[in-house]
Amino acid sequence: MRNVRCLVAYDGSRFFGWQRQEGFLSVQEALENALLSLTGERIVVHGSGRTDTGVHALGQVASFHVETRLSDERLLFALNAHLAEGAVLRGLETCADGFHAQKSARGKRYAYLVRTETFALPFARAHWHWVSAPLDLAAMRVAARHFVGRHDFSALASAGSPRGSNVRTIRALHLVARRGTLALVVEGDGFLYNMVRTLAGTLLEVGRGKRAAHEIPELLLGKDRRRAGPTAPAAGLYLVRVLYVEPAFARLPRGPRGRPGVFQG
Amino acid sequence: MRNVRCLVAYDGSRFFGWQRQEGFLSVQEALENALLSLTGERIVVHGSGRTDTGVHALGQVASFHVETRLSDERLLFALNAHLAEGAVLRGLETCADGFHAQKSARGKRYAYLVRTETFALPFARAHWHWVSAPLDLAAMRVAARHFVGRHDFSALASAGSPRGSNVRTIRALHLVARRGTLALVVEGDGFLYNMVRTLAGTLLEVGRGKRAAHEIPELLLGKDRRRAGPTAPAAGLYLVRVLYVEPAFARLPRGPRGRPGVFQG
Repeated sequence: MRNVRCLVAYDGSRFFGWQRQEGFLSVQEALENALLSLTGERIVVHGSGRTDTGVHALGQVASFHVETRLSDERLLFALNAHLAEGAVLRGLETCADGFHAQKSARGKRYAYLVRTETFALPFARAHWHWVSAPLDLAAMRVAARHFVGRHDFSALASAGSPRGSNVRTIRALHLVARRGTLALVVEGDGFLYNMVRTLAGTLLEVGRGKRAAHEIPELLLGKDRRRAGPTAPAAGLYLVRVLYVEPAFARLPRGPRGRPGVFQG
Repeated sequence: MRNVRCLVAYDGSRFFGWQRQEGFLSVQEALENALLSLTGERIVVHGSGRTDTGVHALGQVASFHVETRLSDERLLFALNAHLAEGAVLRGLETCADGFHAQKSARGKRYAYLVRTETFALPFARAHWHWVSAPLDLAAMRVAARHFVGRHDFSALASAGSPRGSNVRTIRALHLVARRGTLALVVEGDGFLYNMVRTLAGTLLEVGRGKRAAHEIPELLLGKDRRRAGPTAPAAGLYLVRVLYVEPAFARLPRGPRGRPGVFQG
């Protein structure tokens, strides 16, 4: 049995979240269906973690054990041929037997995408969160710095978080603005349920002048979810990367004509 | 009667092109329907030019005469409230009586968006053209330079172009690559029917090594559409800007809290 990991992108508006559930197509089930079509076996696929309905992924990681003579590259093409519309495997590689997409993960990076315009552009509305009011970026950056570091993030955790410690470390939180798009990019060792969306909702309140940046330390100390901002909509959230000790997917597959000096996405 | 011009964005995958046609919803009809709902009058809306089904716009310009006491800003909000999903007015301003969206136009800028990946990302597939092979950007840039200037572009014109001269001036043609996205940005005094898409199709053939950059001058001199590349798909094409002698829409409307130093798309 080979242990295989794959890098998965999906449009969250087309699935009922990551996790398998009776009667609703999830990304996990879509992957398991593709494996069933290909191998005739029911193979359990493990993701690095759940994402809710509407949340997108550019770099979800999934791992599973499979018995096949196909090379990694052929397995990748074959699985993509069987995979439901709205999801795609961007890479696949055989890995050490001890690797597990969730248990081996050491951190994650998310991006929350916001558009600010008086009238939302009519493109890809399920792929960003639209805010009609302008945002005070400078105030948002001051607020963002207060979230970075090791804190008890109970104030940002929705009910549904697993029991246990709510202490997490946010390693970096950047606000990247380009024309009408603002990306909140956050990296940490782990995130509580809805934590990134509540963080985004709270920062957006700061940006709209509804909350002062200097209130954030007290908000965190209070550990009271009701005092934080709203949970920002799923449409803006992307799981960008899952971080492991080893460099996973260091080399995404190149096209058939891959050669140096050539443009390749 | 006030002469009004507006800046229109639309998702080309949601309309049957710009121009009104019986039984299929076009952007022109959607605008005229919004004006009818608002004023009770059938008002003819003139666009800067047609766009085909599937072609998008970030900055189409339309003009019309209307009798109303609403301010420009209120008219803008009211029309957007009545406009069909998939289109939005980004700005609106009363203009000189002689202004006509098409007749006053002095040029246009288009962008053609390409993604190169082995497997297409599952987002917004109707909003770019996806190419699975890598592209030789350097060769494409050499080829692009041959198109710039005043030429007879019959070689790039589909049947359906209006009779008359096929001489046009391409003022600028840039290839902007960022990660997996390549934008061909072209500005000229006017374009023949399907000219930008054939230009894109021809440049993509150069990028894939199917055609040499140095063949372009001869291609243009030959004036034979059959010798150019294929018409690239509508999904990648965006009408970005219509150019007029006067500065139109110099100031897009700001949000209700617009103030200096504030992020605003």
